[in-house]
Amino acid sequence: MAYDLLVIGGGPGGYHAAEKAALAGLKTMLATDGPVGGVCLNEGCIPTKALLYSAKVYEAAKGSAKYGVRVGGAELDHGAVIERKRKVVSALTGGVTRRLRKAGVTVAQGGAVIRGKAGGAFRAEVGGEAVEASSLIIATGSSPIMPRIEGLDRALGTGFAMTSSGMLESAAVPRRLVVVGGGVIGLEMASYYNSAGSEVFVVEALDHIAGFTDREISSMLMAEYERKGVRFLLKGTVTALGDGMVRYGLDGGAYELNADTVLMSVGRRPNVAGLGLESIGVETKGGRIPTDGRMRTNVSGAYAVGDVNGESMLAHTAYVEAEVAVDNILGVRRSVRYGAIPSVIYTNPEVAGCGETEESAAGKGMAVEVRKKPLAYNGRYMAESEGDPGLCKILLEKGTGRIVGVHMMGPYASEVIFGASAFMEMEMTGADVAGMVFPHPTVSEMIKETLER
Amino acid sequence: MAYDLLVIGGGPGGYHAAEKAALAGLKTMLATDGPVGGVCLNEGCIPTKALLYSAKVYEAAKGSAKYGVRVGGAELDHGAVIERKRKVVSALTGGVTRRLRKAGVTVAQGGAVIRGKAGGAFRAEVGGEAVEASSLIIATGSSPIMPRIEGLDRALGTGFAMTSSGMLESAAVPRRLVVVGGGVIGLEMASYYNSAGSEVFVVEALDHIAGFTDREISSMLMAEYERKGVRFLLKGTVTALGDGMVRYGLDGGAYELNADTVLMSVGRRPNVAGLGLESIGVETKGGRIPTDGRMRTNVSGAYAVGDVNGESMLAHTAYVEAEVAVDNILGVRRSVRYGAIPSVIYTNPEVAGCGETEESAAGKGMAVEVRKKPLAYNGRYMAESEGDPGLCKILLEKGTGRIVGVHMMGPYASEVIFGASAFMEMEMTGADVAGMVFPHPTVSEMIKETLER
Repeated sequence: MAYDLLVIGGGPGGYHAAEKAALAGLKTMLATDGPVGGVCLNEGCIPTKALLYSAKVYEAAKGSAKYGVRVGGAELDHGAVIERKRKVVSALTGGVTRRLRKAGVTVAQGGAVIRGKAGGAFRAEVGGEAVEASSLIIATGSSPIMPRIEGLDRALGTGFAMTSSGMLESAAVPRRLVVVGGGVIGLEMASYYNSAGSEVFVVEALDHIAGFTDREISSMLMAEYERKGVRFLLKGTVTALGDGMVRYGLDGGAYELNADTVLMSVGRRPNVAGLGLESIGVETKGGRIPTDGRMRTNVSGAYAVGDVNGESMLAHTAYVEAEVAVDNILGVRRSVRYGAIPSVIYTNPEVAGCGETEESAAGKGMAVEVRKKPLAYNGRYMAESEGDPGLCKILLEKGTGRIVGVHMMGPYASEVIFGASAFMEMEMTGADVAGMVFPHPTVSEMIKETLER
Repeated sequence: MAYDLLVIGGGPGGYHAAEKAALAGLKTMLATDGPVGGVCLNEGCIPTKALLYSAKVYEAAKGSAKYGVRVGGAELDHGAVIERKRKVVSALTGGVTRRLRKAGVTVAQGGAVIRGKAGGAFRAEVGGEAVEASSLIIATGSSPIMPRIEGLDRALGTGFAMTSSGMLESAAVPRRLVVVGGGVIGLEMASYYNSAGSEVFVVEALDHIAGFTDREISSMLMAEYERKGVRFLLKGTVTALGDGMVRYGLDGGAYELNADTVLMSVGRRPNVAGLGLESIGVETKGGRIPTDGRMRTNVSGAYAVGDVNGESMLAHTAYVEAEVAVDNILGVRRSVRYGAIPSVIYTNPEVAGCGETEESAAGKGMAVEVRKKPLAYNGRYMAESEGDPGLCKILLEKGTGRIVGVHMMGPYASEVIFGASAFMEMEMTGADVAGMVFPHPTVSEMIKETLER
């Protein structure tokens, strides 16, 4: 069959691109070797949020006396949480499938392999069937990185070690959980299992958790989880896994830790193997498919969106990249701007940020003015909190006064950050934003309050 | 004493103006006959949010089984809630007092009466002391309207009828509460006492609740509270109050209802009496002090901000009016734009909106295109909800495509609406906003999702 567009991969980048393209009139096939929705919907963003919300309800019930609510004992039923998560995922993947059908996308279940180009069309084999397409969007996503650790393969085989995908299917709560990697995924899982009653250790190779998050905020987050009982082993390296045993190195010493489960969350790597990229000459570099701002690979007509291009590895980046790729296929010249893309950690409290941090600005030699205030300045925060940590920090470029970074920790941070990102996209100054109207009382007002002297 | 600026009134408009002015170098007196913070902080926005958050915690605990959390019975301890509210208010008023002191504002406790103008300066008596000031900001706020109802005065005297201020001080939960007026205050109080176990009746003179709120959303809100047991008597008029008795008219009939408490919340009226406005010739019109966009009254040097000018009667409007008044006093020409000011109802679910509704657009003869989607489209909503009602509606001006109204009902609506308001302030089109990045998964994405086809 001949299509205008073949999209390879059924995650956010893939399904969003396919839907947009089909709605714009392109005859579109979406090839996916997993369930529609990809990692994000099936074993990432959404299921973790379902779990974390249950944990939030549980923690709120446990701490309810502070708010004048008496509760006779609260218990988190992990099996019921996993069962609910299945329903949520099923409802949402069902929704995506219906939208694709309604848009007229042909969804092909099965791996796609590109088989060269002929007569101006890409050729591919999709689930054993030959397909042709004038344009190609590669949206194959990423997979967890498996570092070289002695015994890891065996531990993955026995189920002693798991990825987040595996843990999201498991109805068991480990008594002791060792999380290898203190990035976003590791922290969200640590947060949930801490609530669910596991004794949680996080082993992180760097001297801080949460990757590129503002360092002051990641320190506050770590302190808060230490208070809740999570143990962090910074600058630690797991060297071997045995039967119920984790060996790690720290400060030159070697230690062992007993554990029931090990979660591997050291990062994700783009899926570029086995796609037949070489048959059309698509270049990879450092294991990813490099793209320009218009999402073009080095091969005309072939685009790469989402995790596979390694740009930002966030679902919402994949969405906008998908839109930009489809626009360019349709002849609309448009680029992705990566500077103000927000990121969120759905811990409790939440962390959200966009743009430069003090650390990244210093690294680039940017002169910035830092405005920051604790959330205790905020009326809604005070009405709804009891001493939980919270901070808002805004970076202004010296000279222009432009907002170049916004970082928040506290309730609602995840829902407020899109606006900060929009202010940055529009190149607004701190003075511009301080003069705007924010509804009272909301945590969103912190943006204005932080900008005021 | 001679000041550059005398601010009359200690609520959001007054204290914000005084702080800004003092920080800008003006010798400033703030005269207030009540506690600093005004109605908003002491008996309005903040205390109600403290109560409503406790109710939310309680409802979450009661409904926690849906999320896999087992709770052995939940109970809302109203006395403890009121006690916590006191602490929250005290912490926040303490904060405002410290900020005023730090800024160098002279805070005078006591009513202010204007005593004419002489030698280019306004004269006033503040707590018995004579004061002069070159500029004047009137920020005296508003008081609850008391309609002509037989027996109301007596009922207020005995405590059978109360305003929201009185109820916020009462540690008792009425078995049956009649709320007179189904606007924002009435609905928030009805919501809390519904959670606290009262049988709640809302008598509303109009054929809908929630005033100027989008009509489809106010209907959804009413249906949700009916489901929770609140009874709404639309087009009803309370005609008399007796001992534990409320008489009302409806559809031509006259009825009586037994009640323990009656909450009077039919609206608020600007405080213009007893200020000595006539001594300097400040005009009032329909009981309010009319102002232009720069917050100037008809008398040069005299400004009016907040509820007293009757423009929008919201704390965040008062803030921006305060800033604009001070800027104009300082010689910076600046106006308030009222078109995109957001409003929020902190019920459960929350309601938030800004700009035109379908009804107001029709009333103005504006041609609009309506985009709307239920929140069930949204990943975070699905992960965190179990069938709660939710809607996002966006109005685009036909022809230009500009966003002219955004209305939401559902979780986080209060924290998302500032961004929608900002998009309107910047005169963005639906297409502009649909192309922006919203973090996934968040309810804020609904703005983008609603704008997409």
